[in-house]
Amino acid sequence: MSFSPFEHPVLRGLFGDAEIAELFSAEADVAAMLRFETALAAAQASAGIISEGEAASISQGLAKVDIDYAALRNGVAKDGVVIPELVRQLRAAVEKTVAPKVHFGATSQDVIDTSLMLRLKAAAFILGTRLSSCIAGMEGLIKRDGSKPLMGYTRMQAAIPITVADRVVSWQAPLCRHEERLHLLLEKNFAIQLGGAAGTLDSLGDKAADVRAELARRLDLAESVQWHSQRDGIADFAHFLTLVTGTLGKFGQDIALLAQTGSGIRLSGGGGSSAMPHKQNPVVAETLVALARFNAVQVSAIHQAMVHEQERSGAAWMLEWLVLPQMVAATGSALLSAERLILQIEALGS
Amino acid sequence: MSFSPFEHPVLRGLFGDAEIAELFSAEADVAAMLRFETALAAAQASAGIISEGEAASISQGLAKVDIDYAALRNGVAKDGVVIPELVRQLRAAVEKTVAPKVHFGATSQDVIDTSLMLRLKAAAFILGTRLSSCIAGMEGLIKRDGSKPLMGYTRMQAAIPITVADRVVSWQAPLCRHEERLHLLLEKNFAIQLGGAAGTLDSLGDKAADVRAELARRLDLAESVQWHSQRDGIADFAHFLTLVTGTLGKFGQDIALLAQTGSGIRLSGGGGSSAMPHKQNPVVAETLVALARFNAVQVSAIHQAMVHEQERSGAAWMLEWLVLPQMVAATGSALLSAERLILQIEALGS
Amino acid sequence: MSFSPFEHPVLRGLFGDAEIAELFSAEADVAAMLRFETALAAAQASAGIISEGEAASISQGLAKVDIDYAALRNGVAKDGVVIPELVRQLRAAVEKTVAPKVHFGATSQDVIDTSLMLRLKAAAFILGTRLSSCIAGMEGLIKRDGSKPLMGYTRMQAAIPITVADRVVSWQAPLCRHEERLHLLLEKNFAIQLGGAAGTLDSLGDKAADVRAELARRLDLAESVQWHSQRDGIADFAHFLTLVTGTLGKFGQDIALLAQTGSGIRLSGGGGSSAMPHKQNPVVAETLVALARFNAVQVSAIHQAMVHEQERSGAAWMLEWLVLPQMVAATGSALLSAERLILQIEALGS
Amino acid sequence: MSFSPFEHPVLRGLFGDAEIAELFSAEADVAAMLRFETALAAAQASAGIISEGEAASISQGLAKVDIDYAALRNGVAKDGVVIPELVRQLRAAVEKTVAPKVHFGATSQDVIDTSLMLRLKAAAFILGTRLSSCIAGMEGLIKRDGSKPLMGYTRMQAAIPITVADRVVSWQAPLCRHEERLHLLLEKNFAIQLGGAAGTLDSLGDKAADVRAELARRLDLAESVQWHSQRDGIADFAHFLTLVTGTLGKFGQDIALLAQTGSGIRLSGGGGSSAMPHKQNPVVAETLVALARFNAVQVSAIHQAMVHEQERSGAAWMLEWLVLPQMVAATGSALLSAERLILQIEALGS
Repeated sequence: MSFSPFEHPVLRGLFGDAEIAELFSAEADVAAMLRFETALAAAQASAGIISEGEAASISQGLAKVDIDYAALRNGVAKDGVVIPELVRQLRAAVEKTVAPKVHFGATSQDVIDTSLMLRLKAAAFILGTRLSSCIAGMEGLIKRDGSKPLMGYTRMQAAIPITVADRVVSWQAPLCRHEERLHLLLEKNFAIQLGGAAGTLDSLGDKAADVRAELARRLDLAESVQWHSQRDGIADFAHFLTLVTGTLGKFGQDIALLAQTGSGIRLSGGGGSSAMPHKQNPVVAETLVALARFNAVQVSAIHQAMVHEQERSGAAWMLEWLVLPQMVAATGSALLSAERLILQIEALGS
Repeated sequence: MSFSPFEHPVLRGLFGDAEIAELFSAEADVAAMLRFETALAAAQASAGIISEGEAASISQGLAKVDIDYAALRNGVAKDGVVIPELVRQLRAAVEKTVAPKVHFGATSQDVIDTSLMLRLKAAAFILGTRLSSCIAGMEGLIKRDGSKPLMGYTRMQAAIPITVADRVVSWQAPLCRHEERLHLLLEKNFAIQLGGAAGTLDSLGDKAADVRAELARRLDLAESVQWHSQRDGIADFAHFLTLVTGTLGKFGQDIALLAQTGSGIRLSGGGGSSAMPHKQNPVVAETLVALARFNAVQVSAIHQAMVHEQERSGAAWMLEWLVLPQMVAATGSALLSAERLILQIEALGS
Repeated sequence: MSFSPFEHPVLRGLFGDAEIAELFSAEADVAAMLRFETALAAAQASAGIISEGEAASISQGLAKVDIDYAALRNGVAKDGVVIPELVRQLRAAVEKTVAPKVHFGATSQDVIDTSLMLRLKAAAFILGTRLSSCIAGMEGLIKRDGSKPLMGYTRMQAAIPITVADRVVSWQAPLCRHEERLHLLLEKNFAIQLGGAAGTLDSLGDKAADVRAELARRLDLAESVQWHSQRDGIADFAHFLTLVTGTLGKFGQDIALLAQTGSGIRLSGGGGSSAMPHKQNPVVAETLVALARFNAVQVSAIHQAMVHEQERSGAAWMLEWLVLPQMVAATGSALLSAERLILQIEALGS
Repeated sequence: MSFSPFEHPVLRGLFGDAEIAELFSAEADVAAMLRFETALAAAQASAGIISEGEAASISQGLAKVDIDYAALRNGVAKDGVVIPELVRQLRAAVEKTVAPKVHFGATSQDVIDTSLMLRLKAAAFILGTRLSSCIAGMEGLIKRDGSKPLMGYTRMQAAIPITVADRVVSWQAPLCRHEERLHLLLEKNFAIQLGGAAGTLDSLGDKAADVRAELARRLDLAESVQWHSQRDGIADFAHFLTLVTGTLGKFGQDIALLAQTGSGIRLSGGGGSSAMPHKQNPVVAETLVALARFNAVQVSAIHQAMVHEQERSGAAWMLEWLVLPQMVAATGSALLSAERLILQIEALGS
C-alpha cells in the first residue's frame, strides 16, 4: 500500500524487489532486534555478567513476545527511536526478576545499528547472488555472439568496428570487480555495534571486550569496538551499491542506444505504447538508467550523514534511515532488471 | 507495510503524513486518471469530436469501473507505464461502441502527467495550509516572547544580545516568502498535459486548442500546450519543496542548538533515551534537519531529469517517479513536525 | 593559471567565460566592496549619522586606495573572512579622523553579501542577454527549417513524424519561461544586506531604515531588512541557473542523438579525433549535457547551505562560496556553447 | 587569478593547497602527457613495433618541445580534447621520419586518462602523508589530554561523562581506516589506460599485452586492459576523498560545538570579527564542515558519470573533468586545515 515505487501496488511491477523489501519491513527489523537482545544476554552470561539462567529466561521470553506495533509507532513519535518502547515491551514479556537484565548495558543505537547490519549483510548475499547471475548471463552473451562485429561508438559517433565481446566485457568486467568489492565488504564491514550510553560500555566494566567478541560470534557479524559516530563502513556499502547501479546504468544506456539505431541488437519483450501499438520500448534498459541516476543522487545523503556530531547525531542518523533502505532496494531492483534484460537480448552484433 | 519511513508501520510515527501519502496511493492515481479520461471525453464532446452521448456513456462506464490492480502491475512490468493496460480495462468497462473513444487522441504521458498535476495541486493546498499555520504559530511566539533578550550567535560563538523576535523572524520571514512563491506556482505551474503520440495532437486536428481549454477548465488546472519533455514546471515545484524544508531545517537546527546550550529555551516533550532516562532529546528539531538535508539531496535528481531527451524520455521520467512523491511527503512531514515543535516551545529567551 | 576548467589555460577553450570569470575575480569583489563602503558612508551622511564632509573624505580615500592582496590573503586565513583586514587597509587610506566612520555599523557579512549581490545582478544581465540571443537563434532555426519533417522519438524509439518546429519549440519555450523567471528575480532577489553585528543594526538607532533605503538606491539593489541567515533568495538564483543549464542539456542531448543517427541534421564544426580523422564529434552538444549534470549536482550544495544556523553560519556560508561562482560560470559557459551550437546547425529535418 | 576558492588570490588563504593545485595545472598535465608518449614509444620499441632509434629520437624530441598553450586552447575548443593539437605539436618537434610514430596506436583518451592517473597517484601520496600527520597529531592529543573527563553528548544533549580519548578516537579511528583504504587503492586503482581508437588496440596486433606491461612498468602505474568506459576505479578514489573530508567534517563540527559551549576546549588562533573584536571564531573548524559537505555533493557527479555510454562518452567524461580536480583540492585543503586545527587545540577536557 506504499507510494514508494519499490513497493507501490502498481509500479512495483517495474521497480519491485520483494526479497529486499522484506528485509526492511518493520517485522524483519524487530526480529533482528530480538536476535540482538537475545544474543546480548547470552554473551553476558558467557562473560559472567548475568547468569545462564537469566539468559535462558530472556531467550524464552523474547521467543514468544507479541509485539504491539501501534505502541512502537507512538514510542518513536515521542522518543525519536523505537527502543525505549520496545525494551518496555520486551521487559514485560520476560519474568519480572530478569526484566532489568534485558538490554542491560546497551543503548538504542546499539540495537538499531546492529539490526541494520544483520539485514544489510543478508541483503549483501542476495545482491551477490544476483551479481553472479548477471556475470554468468553476460558470459552467455559473449559465448553466443561475442565474435560478431559491432560498430564501436565514441562520443556518440560511429568510430571503428569492434566485436560484441568487446562491448559486453565493458559491462561485465566492472561487475566482476564489484563482486570482489563485495567479498572485501563481507569480511569486515558488517560489524556489531555495542557501546552503551555514550559508547564506552561503562556498565560492562572489564568484560566489555569478551561480551563484544561473543556477541559478534553469535550474530555472525564482525567484531568491532563501537562505531556510533563513525559511519564510514555504511558509506562503503552505499558506495558499493552505487557502483553496481552505475555499471548497470551504462549497460541499460548502451542497450537503449542500440535499440534506437535499430541495428546491432534484436530485443524481445519491449514495452507497448497506448498511442503507438507498433513500438517496442526498451523499458527495462531505461529502468536501469533511472536507477543508476537515482542512487548517484542518494549516495550524496550518506556522505552528508558522515558529519555525525558528538557521540550521536539524531539528524545525521535519521538521514541514513531515509535513504539507505531505498538505495539497497534500487540496487536489488536494478540487478533483477539486468537479469531480465540479458534474457531479452535475442541477438547482438550485425 | 512499507519500508519507506514516510509510511513504515513504526517510523511513520516520526515521519508519517497520512494526508500526503493518500494522494500518492495507487488508488488516488487511478482516480485522477479516470478524472482525466472522463474530462477528456467531455471536452471532445464540447468540441464536436465525439458526440455528447458518447461522452456520457464513457462517463457512466468509468464511474463504475472496477480496476484490476494486479493486471495493472503486470502491465507496467511489460510496458513501463500503466496506461495501455488501464485503457484496456476502461474500454472493457464502457459500451462496446464507444470503447475506441476512450483515451482518444491521448497518449500515456498525457494521463500520467495530468494525474500527477491534479495531485500535486491538491498537495500544494495542504502544504499551503500548514505553512500558514506555522507562520501563525511563530507569530504567537513573537507575541509571547518577542521582546525578551536572547544571545545572538555568529559563527558558533556568542556575539551580542538580540531579541527573541529577531531570531523568530529569521524563521518566519522566509516562510512568508514561501507562501508567496506557492501563490505564484498555483497560478500557472499546475497545468494539463495533452499532446498525443508525439506531442502534436495530430488526431484532434484544428480542435486541439478547444479541447485543451475545456479540459483545463474541467480539471481546474492551468491551460497549456504540451510540455512532455519540458520539465521546468516540475523543477519549480521541487525547488519550492526544498526551500520549505531548508527553512524548517534552519529552525530545527537553531532549536537543537538552543536545547544544547540549555539556556534561552524551555522545551516540552523531548524524546527519552533507553539508556539515560534523564535526557530530553530534541527529536522533532532533529527531524527537521534530517528532512532538510534529505530534500536538498533529492532535488538534484529532479534537475538531472531535466535532460529529458527527444519527445519522451523513459529514463528521465522514471527518475521523477522515484523522487518527487517522497519530496512532497518529506515536506508535508516537515511542516507537521514544525507545527508540533512550535507547540513544544514553552518559552524562548532568557 | 587555474585548474578550474572555467579558467584553465587549455580547457577554457571549451568551458571558459571571460565575462563571468571577471565578475568573480578578487579585483571585482574588492571593487564591489569599496562601492558598498562608499555608498554606506554616503547613506549615513544623508541620514545625518555622519557628516557630508566625512562621507566625502571617505569617498576620496577609498577612490585611491591601493589594496594589498597578500595581506588580504593572510587576513582571510586568520579571520575566515576578508573584511577585518580590508577595513584596516581602508581606514589607513582615509584621513585619520574619519577612519572610524569607515564600515561604521556594518559587519563582515554585510559587505561580502552585498558585494555578491552586485556581481550576481551584473551576471544576471549578461545571462539575460545570452538567453535572448539563444531564443532568437532558435527562432531562426524555426523560420529556416520549421516546416520540414523530423522523426519524433519517444522512449528512444522512432514514434511518429513531427516537424522541426515541434522539436525546436521544446528547446525554446522553456528558455522563454526562464527569461520571465529572470525578470521576476531582477525585481527583488538582488537585495542589499545590512544588519550589523548580529543583524539588528543597533548602532544606527532609528535611522536604520533610512540608511538601508538610501544604500539600496545608490547601489541599484532591492531594499531589504537583513537576510543574513535566510538564503532563499540565493537558492532561487541557483535554481534559475540550473533550469537554464538543464534546458540547454536537453538541447545538447537531442543534438547528439540526432548526430548519432546521422539523419535529420547537418552539423558543421564537429571535433576531430586523434585516432580517427574522419569523425565529426558533436563536442559542443556534449558540453551542454556535461554542464547540465554539473549544475544539477551543485544546486544540492546551495540547498544544504540553507541550514544556516543561528545569526551567521561560517560553514554554510563558505559552502556557498565554494559552489555559487562556478554555477554562474557553468551557466554562462552553457549559454555561450548553445549560441555556438545553434550556428553550427546547418540544417534540421529530412 | 582564479575565482576558484582553492586558487583565488584572497580566498586561497583559507582553502588553498598549492601542492595539489600544481598537480592539476596545465603544465603538469602536459608534462604527464609527454611522459606517456615517451614511455609509449619506449614500450613499443621493447616490443619491436618501432625501432629503438625511433624511440630515442621521440624521447629527445619531446624532451625539448616548447608547447604552444594558446594553440592547445584553440584545439580543445574545436576538438573537445587537447590531444589532436598536442600530437600535432609533438610530431612537429621530432624528426620528420619518426613523426608518425609519436602517439602510434593510441587515442586521445589513452593520453588524457593516463595523465590523470599519474597525477592522481601523486596526489594520493601527498594526501597519505597528511593523513599520517593528522593521525599522529591526534595521537598527541590523546597522550596529552586523553584521560581528562569530557561531557559526552548524544542527540545534542549532555549524556554521561566520557574521556577526551573516547572523543579523539572517534576522529582518529576512521582516519586510520582511510589510510588502509588508500593502501588498497595504491595497489591497483591507478592504472594505465591504453586502448586505441575504440579500445581494442587493433594497430598493435599481438604485441598489445607486451606494450601495456612495459608502459605500466615505465610509468609506475598498475597494468590494465583498457577501462575507457568503466569508471569504477575513479569512483573508488572519489569515494575515498569524500570519506576523508567527511571524517574531518565531523572533527570540525565537534570542535565548533565544543567552542560554542565554551567548556571542554581551549582553542588558539580563532578568527576575528570586523564588528566584534572580542570574538574568537572557530574558522578552521567551520572550513572542515564546509569542505565535507562540498565533497559530499560533488561525489554525486562522479557517480552520474558512470553512465558512460558506448565506447566513449564525451559528456560523462567532461563531467569528471569539471569535478574531480576540485574534489582532490578540497581533500588536500581539508587535511591541511585539520593539521592546523589540531595545533590550535591547546587543551581538551575539563
